Amino acid sequence: MVPTLLTTDSPAQAQASQLASWSDGSAKQAILDFVRSTTDRASPNFVPPGERIATFDQDGTLWVEHPMYSQMMYCFDRVPALAAQKPALKRTEPFKTVLSGNRAAIAKLTVLDLEKIIITTLTGMTTDEFDVEVKKWLATAKDPRWKRSYTELTYQPMQEVMSYLRANGYKTFIVTGFGQDFVRVYSEQIYGIPPEQVVGSVLATKYDYAKDGKPILIKEPELMFNDNNTLKPEGIHLMIGRRPYAAFGNSTGDRQMLEYTGAGKGARLMMLVLHDDAQREYAYGPVQGLPDTKVGTFTQALYDEAKKKGWTVISMKNDWKRIFAFE
Amino acid sequence: MVPTLLTTDSPAQAQASQLASWSDGSAKQAILDFVRSTTDRASPNFVPPGERIATFDQDGTLWVEHPMYSQMMYCFDRVPALAAQKPALKRTEPFKTVLSGNRAAIAKLTVLDLEKIIITTLTGMTTDEFDVEVKKWLATAKDPRWKRSYTELTYQPMQEVMSYLRANGYKTFIVTGFGQDFVRVYSEQIYGIPPEQVVGSVLATKYDYAKDGKPILIKEPELMFNDNNTLKPEGIHLMIGRRPYAAFGNSTGDRQMLEYTGAGKGARLMMLVLHDDAQREYAYGPVQGLPDTKVGTFTQALYDEAKKKGWTVISMKNDWKRIFAFE
Repeated sequence: MVPTLLTTDSPAQAQASQLASWSDGSAKQAILDFVRSTTDRASPNFVPPGERIATFDQDGTLWVEHPMYSQMMYCFDRVPALAAQKPALKRTEPFKTVLSGNRAAIAKLTVLDLEKIIITTLTGMTTDEFDVEVKKWLATAKDPRWKRSYTELTYQPMQEVMSYLRANGYKTFIVTGFGQDFVRVYSEQIYGIPPEQVVGSVLATKYDYAKDGKPILIKEPELMFNDNNTLKPEGIHLMIGRRPYAAFGNSTGDRQMLEYTGAGKGARLMMLVLHDDAQREYAYGPVQGLPDTKVGTFTQALYDEAKKKGWTVISMKNDWKRIFAFE
Repeated sequence: MVPTLLTTDSPAQAQASQLASWSDGSAKQAILDFVRSTTDRASPNFVPPGERIATFDQDGTLWVEHPMYSQMMYCFDRVPALAAQKPALKRTEPFKTVLSGNRAAIAKLTVLDLEKIIITTLTGMTTDEFDVEVKKWLATAKDPRWKRSYTELTYQPMQEVMSYLRANGYKTFIVTGFGQDFVRVYSEQIYGIPPEQVVGSVLATKYDYAKDGKPILIKEPELMFNDNNTLKPEGIHLMIGRRPYAAFGNSTGDRQMLEYTGAGKGARLMMLVLHDDAQREYAYGPVQGLPDTKVGTFTQALYDEAKKKGWTVISMKNDWKRIFAFE
């Protein structure tokens, strides 16, 4: 049910000042046009407030994903503590390499190695214990470049888009390829998005009992749902049950989410963040010969598809006056 | 994020008149005490509005489940249309029995037979086609006893509890053992609960493309999640990500949901609906020698556990002045 608060006609124009970190241009205009078109009762594309759903990828879309996804950093940082508990890990790859601290060797770990590290470091504890561990880590871990908490490295213009959409009756969801349990720990605090509006990859849990008889949920080493590519629309159907009107991403993992969003009737907003600002953040992707990277692949094919289908590519360099709140 | 609307201190007492269909007694009092205790800022059990989560089983808790779950009726009613498309079904059990209309034989179908019928009738179409079919069925199907739409057979006192909780800042979720895609079709209209707040059993979907190139989600014959028993708390963790403060059920399938809810800190409300009113609805369960039934098993063991743990058993006969809105 939609609180009465949201059913009033929103003065979208007046709230446009909320997009203060956006330069005037086609990206900002696309957001303004979409909101006006879907919230004006006189518009043929008017969407009732309860149906206003917007989905956001996280890594590289809402916050920095370089040099490595923050959840991956968390998993790496957990390895020493885990090896102290289970000494056999010290002699087992890929944990041995992680413990060696040899950056060149760590950089060569395969996707399969990373999966093994993820599953080993995120399971075998209760969901409550997991939350405590993540909170503890977030309170102390720092990004190597800015020497700031990861939670400070969210993009101010994207925070403004989320606020602007919410002020116009949109319900905002995160749809991340990373673990939803991880993101749910801080989503409310840093994005204003409650845990139940975070969709992501899922490791199964098992209902069990602690020694004192209290029921607990144990995180199991079984990947139940890998929320990327075609699994993003499937995850949206599973967890939200309706097609979004707006979707934001930055890589091929978000392609199907944008495609699915765009296939709905009426006005839809599909946006991709292009990392083309090496000075203020990072530059990687298909444009101007920027080198591609392991993370957040924004391929030339995705760029071409966006242009062809009318998805908006956001240039960090040109469309964003400011990248971080602390600037 | 919680709309400002809900963060004001709610005058819980004034809204108690919303429980008009409840007789004065321990069940009504338990609801009033719980809401006062968790919404009064001066209370040691005060719960911040954003964390106020309440979960409700559907069949037998929010609406009638006799003589058969309505979704099962839907599946049975789909068999003739399906057999017209795939004539081989006419010669295959259990479809042959369903098509025979022989009630005695149908009553003897096993759980495995029913599962086969469920999976065959609910899959092999797009999610959009499924929604259209269910809407069409709901508009015409009638309950055999009251000759009314299934959607009219919701319990008025439970509607009042949901409204009362929402008026006090609670977010209400359905946590059903039946298919969440089915319940999501009508949940907003009849319960005021939007699709994204419906958790239930899940048949997998597959992202694919129609002949015209449009992306579609196909319902697959693969049970991804059976939302009953221990899977109810697991489903709550998967889809909501926080422990409820209040949980309502009516059978052993809800036991772990209530147990998990009750294991949280502070004031929690656990309630079980007992069907002990043969005249106005049905009587089945452990009390007064009522015959047990195939559906919604409220065992003597569950009754004893409720009494021991302080879960409230709602007597339909004594606690509810009125059962349906149309009475």
